Amino acid sequence: MPHLSLEYTQNLTGYDAPAALRTLGQAMFDSGLFGEADIKGRAQCLAGYLVGTSDTDTAFVHVQVSLLSGRTAEQKQALGARIAEALQTTLPAGHSGVQLTVDVRDMDRDCYAKVVLPG
Amino acid sequence: MPHLSLEYTQNLTGYDAPAALRTLGQAMFDSGLFGEADIKGRAQCLAGYLVGTSDTDTAFVHVQVSLLSGRTAEQKQALGARIAEALQTTLPAGHSGVQLTVDVRDMDRDCYAKVVLPG
Amino acid sequence: MPHLSLEYTQNLTGYDAPAALRTLGQAMFDSGLFGEADIKGRAQCLAGYLVGTSDTDTAFVHVQVSLLSGRTAEQKQALGARIAEALQTTLPAGHSGVQLTVDVRDMDRDCYAKVVLPG
Repeated sequence: MPHLSLEYTQNLTGYDAPAALRTLGQAMFDSGLFGEADIKGRAQCLAGYLVGTSDTDTAFVHVQVSLLSGRTAEQKQALGARIAEALQTTLPAGHSGVQLTVDVRDMDRDCYAKVVLPG
Repeated sequence: MPHLSLEYTQNLTGYDAPAALRTLGQAMFDSGLFGEADIKGRAQCLAGYLVGTSDTDTAFVHVQVSLLSGRTAEQKQALGARIAEALQTTLPAGHSGVQLTVDVRDMDRDCYAKVVLPG
Repeated sequence: MPHLSLEYTQNLTGYDAPAALRTLGQAMFDSGLFGEADIKGRAQCLAGYLVGTSDTDTAFVHVQVSLLSGRTAEQKQALGARIAEALQTTLPAGHSGVQLTVDVRDMDRDCYAKVVLPG
């Protein structure tokens, strides 16, 4: 906990996904809600995507943040806004009309399991 | 909003994922719940999959629809049924016993963030 | 229903994902909550990942289990623990400090749709 998943469409040429993960990881950490080592991010380029019913020209970038239940609505709202702001800084120049979205979802704390293998 | 994610197993030879995304995008739009430009789809072929404990012969196709909270249970149920119906039309001939599933989930409206870069 | 998604970071050299899916599928089945043919698993190697703000040395493995709503909190908690235990047995030797996490989430039973094509 927490998990961050970044998806970006393949037409977003020049997108630096490793740098974006670092920027978003920093934003997660700066929220003060999480220990640094607990933040787990992954990025995926979407080769198959579609906007609406026929549009493959428009690009989009979507982030899902999954965190343990228990944070207040205010904390989650602030986190979503923070991630959206950081996300905007990751976009390469020369793209317009890109849709950026952030979904913050709870994971059920009572069912979540975590194990760290001994170092 | 909304997001649609399509997964299909690699053994489903001949599956036309770009066409399937168009069919599903049209079904989403035809529901009347969403603006066309807001519908964001992606498709992924599952190279590593398993049914049960040892079966890699059976194929499956799974769709997850994520939409902002606030729709009624009836609206979401109708949407799930509509997507399942559309999904059946995307299957290539010659496959039997394929499992098709649709999961409609809410995204917390209060935490969702969206930005569109100026065009 | 149910769906199981396994993600593992690319630095986890020697990870046998097909075997891991079989182990996890067996653990799902052994829970007694599901029919064998209903369990649908997929595995994905994460080429782009990050722990914290800069760490790409630490490995992680994450499982998300999605099941129809209606199980009790106790059943879901036990399932999460069972999957976490099985997950530990899938790790290759020689890795330390790996983070293993399991997220058990409900799918809304009223909106879920399933069709099986005639065999």
